[in-house]
Amino acid sequence: MYAVIMAGGEGTRFWPLSRATCPKQFLSILGGEPLLAQTLARLEGLIPPDRILVTINRKHREVAQRLLGNLPPKNLIVEPRIRDTAPCIGLAASIVRQRAGDQTIICLPSDHVIHPPDGLRECLSHTEAAVNGDPAALYTIGIRPAYPATGYGYILRGSAVQQVDGITVYEVASFHEKPSMAVAEAYFDSGDYFWNSGIFFWRTDAILENVRRRLPELAEGLDQLAPDLDTDRMETALARVFPRLPRISIDYGVLEQADRVRVVEGHFAWDDVGTWRVLRGHLPADEHANIKAGNVVAVDTGGCTLYSAGNHLVTALGVRDLIIVATPDATLVTTPDNAERVRDLVAKLKERHLDRYL
Amino acid sequence: MYAVIMAGGEGTRFWPLSRATCPKQFLSILGGEPLLAQTLARLEGLIPPDRILVTINRKHREVAQRLLGNLPPKNLIVEPRIRDTAPCIGLAASIVRQRAGDQTIICLPSDHVIHPPDGLRECLSHTEAAVNGDPAALYTIGIRPAYPATGYGYILRGSAVQQVDGITVYEVASFHEKPSMAVAEAYFDSGDYFWNSGIFFWRTDAILENVRRRLPELAEGLDQLAPDLDTDRMETALARVFPRLPRISIDYGVLEQADRVRVVEGHFAWDDVGTWRVLRGHLPADEHANIKAGNVVAVDTGGCTLYSAGNHLVTALGVRDLIIVATPDATLVTTPDNAERVRDLVAKLKERHLDRYL
Repeated sequence: MYAVIMAGGEGTRFWPLSRATCPKQFLSILGGEPLLAQTLARLEGLIPPDRILVTINRKHREVAQRLLGNLPPKNLIVEPRIRDTAPCIGLAASIVRQRAGDQTIICLPSDHVIHPPDGLRECLSHTEAAVNGDPAALYTIGIRPAYPATGYGYILRGSAVQQVDGITVYEVASFHEKPSMAVAEAYFDSGDYFWNSGIFFWRTDAILENVRRRLPELAEGLDQLAPDLDTDRMETALARVFPRLPRISIDYGVLEQADRVRVVEGHFAWDDVGTWRVLRGHLPADEHANIKAGNVVAVDTGGCTLYSAGNHLVTALGVRDLIIVATPDATLVTTPDNAERVRDLVAKLKERHLDRYL
Repeated sequence: MYAVIMAGGEGTRFWPLSRATCPKQFLSILGGEPLLAQTLARLEGLIPPDRILVTINRKHREVAQRLLGNLPPKNLIVEPRIRDTAPCIGLAASIVRQRAGDQTIICLPSDHVIHPPDGLRECLSHTEAAVNGDPAALYTIGIRPAYPATGYGYILRGSAVQQVDGITVYEVASFHEKPSMAVAEAYFDSGDYFWNSGIFFWRTDAILENVRRRLPELAEGLDQLAPDLDTDRMETALARVFPRLPRISIDYGVLEQADRVRVVEGHFAWDDVGTWRVLRGHLPADEHANIKAGNVVAVDTGGCTLYSAGNHLVTALGVRDLIIVATPDATLVTTPDNAERVRDLVAKLKERHLDRYL
C-alpha cells in the first residue's frame, strides 16, 4: 500500500501567517508540529516512509526538505506549477505504478486536522480489504457531520454494497458543494450525508483508467511523462509538461462523474482548517469567549480571536466578535463571517504590489 | 510678554504610538511637525525664543533637546516628576519674575491643534491690552463650540467687563466639567458657553498671588525654590522640592476658585487631540468613510480609522467603525466609543509587566 500526501497548495486563507513562501501545510497554526508533519506522523506504523510520496510546489522545496528529513529524496515530488489535485494524483499514481506495478494508493491532503491520529490509521487499515471487494471502484472517506457545516462539501451515501472487516462500504449517490445553512441543516438532520474529507483511496489502475476516460488531456500528459519518471530527466520533463496539464480537482474532474464511487465512514474528528475561524474549535476560550494565542492583551473584549505569531503585541479594547491576527510585519482584522474572504484581501495586496507581504 | 509651553505630560491616550519615552507632544500624529514644534511655531513673531519657557519631564530631556534646538538651554525647564499644571505654571511664573520682574505670561498646552496659527497669534496680540485693563485678573481663552462636544470642559461666560482693541473680555460665570451629550447640546444651543482651551494668560504677580491664596503648599514650595532658580543648584533643588508639590491642575486648584477670572474668545479652530477619534476630524476620509494613514489596506471596510506608523501593514476585511493603530511592535484595535479608555489598556499592559511596549 502506498500513500501520497498532497502538499502542493499555496493557500492564502491564513494570511498573514501563511505566505507564498510558507503556506498553511508548513505552519503550526494550532500549535504542535506543522500540519504536514502531523499528516505524515499519522501514517506511522501503517505505511513505511519509502512508500509515501509527498507532492509540493517548487517554491517550497527548501521548507519541505527541512520538514521531511526522513523521507527518501525521490519521494518528494516537486510540481513546477500549481495544478490542483487531479494532475497531482495522476502523477503520483503513475510514479507508484512505474515503481511497483499497480498498487492501492491513499491520497491525503497535507493540511487537515484529525483527532485522534489512531482513528485515521484504523480506518485506513481497512482500505486493502475494501479495495479487494471492488478493485475498479474509487473510494472516499466520509465524516459523519458533527454540526451543519456550510464550509464543507457533502456526500450523499447510497446503499451499502459491501461489509468488510466490520466496516460498511456505501455507494456514493451524489456529491454536493458547500451548502447554504438551511440545506446544511437538512443534510445534518437526514443522517444520510457525510462531509467530504478529501481523503481517497483506490488502486492505481482504477484511478488512471478513470483519468483516461474523464480527463483525456491529463492522461495524455501523464503518458508523455511516463518515460522520464524517476530518471534524472524528470524535473525537465515536469517543467515542460506539468504546466500544460488541466487545472482541475480530482473531485470535479473525476469523482463526480465516475461510475463506481464508494464512501467509507471515517470514525475520527476532522477539520479542514479552512479559515481563521477554525481556531475557535481547537483552542480554549477564556471567560469572555476570547480565543487567545501568543502575545495578546484584551480589555473589555469578547468573542474575539486574538492571535499573534511572534513578538508583535496585539491589543483589543472594547471590541466584539473580531478575528485579529498579527505577524511581525502585518496584521489582519476581520470577522468570522469574512474569514473565508482573506484570499480577496491577498488579491488586493497583489494588486497594490505589496509583494513583500505575500 | 513671556510664554510657557507646558510639555511635561506623559499622555498614554495615543498608545501604541505614544510611549513613556515619547508622549503625544513629541509626535506628529496628524502629520507635519511634532505638536510641540507646531505650538512653538505659532508664537513666532509674537514672542522671541528667549522669552519662551518650555517645561518637560526629565524622561524626555533628549527628545525635547533635539526638537527645541533654537531655544536657549536655560528656557528648557526640566520637571523631575509629573505634577500637573499648577506646579508647572507656578514655577514658570517664579522664573519669569526672577529674570525680568513681573510680566504678562501666556500659558499654552504643547499638544493641541490650532488652525490657523495666525488665529492664535491675533488673539494673543491683545493680551497686553486686556491684562492692562485688569492686571489682577486671570484670563482664559474660550473657543466657541463647533459642535456639542462631550470631551471638553466648558466655560459659562458672564457679563462683558471690558472692550479693548475690538475684543470683548467677559467675566467667567462658571467652569464646567466634560458634560453628558444632553448637557453638551444645551450648552451648545445656549450660545453662552465656550470650550475651555487650556490657554491662559495673566501677570506673574496675579497668578502667584492666587496660588498663594488657593494653594499655599505650592506657594511655600516655590518660596523654597526661589533662591536656586536659574543657578547651577536648580536641578538639585527641583529634585528635592518638586516631587512634594501638590499634584493638581491650575483649573481645579486656582481658576475655579479665583475671584476675578475672565474669558476672551479665540477666533480659531481648536482641538485638544484627546483620543484616536480625532483623526476623523483632521484627515480626509475615503469613499467608504475610512480614514487611512500609512501602510494600510482595506477591503469591504467602512467607517474605520486605519493608521500605521512604520512598515507594519494593517489590513481590514469586512469590518465597520473600528479604530486600528499599528506601530512596528504593537497594534491596537478599538472603537471610537472606547478610544478614551486607551489608558485602561496601558494600565493593563503595566500590570502584565509588558514594559517594553509602554
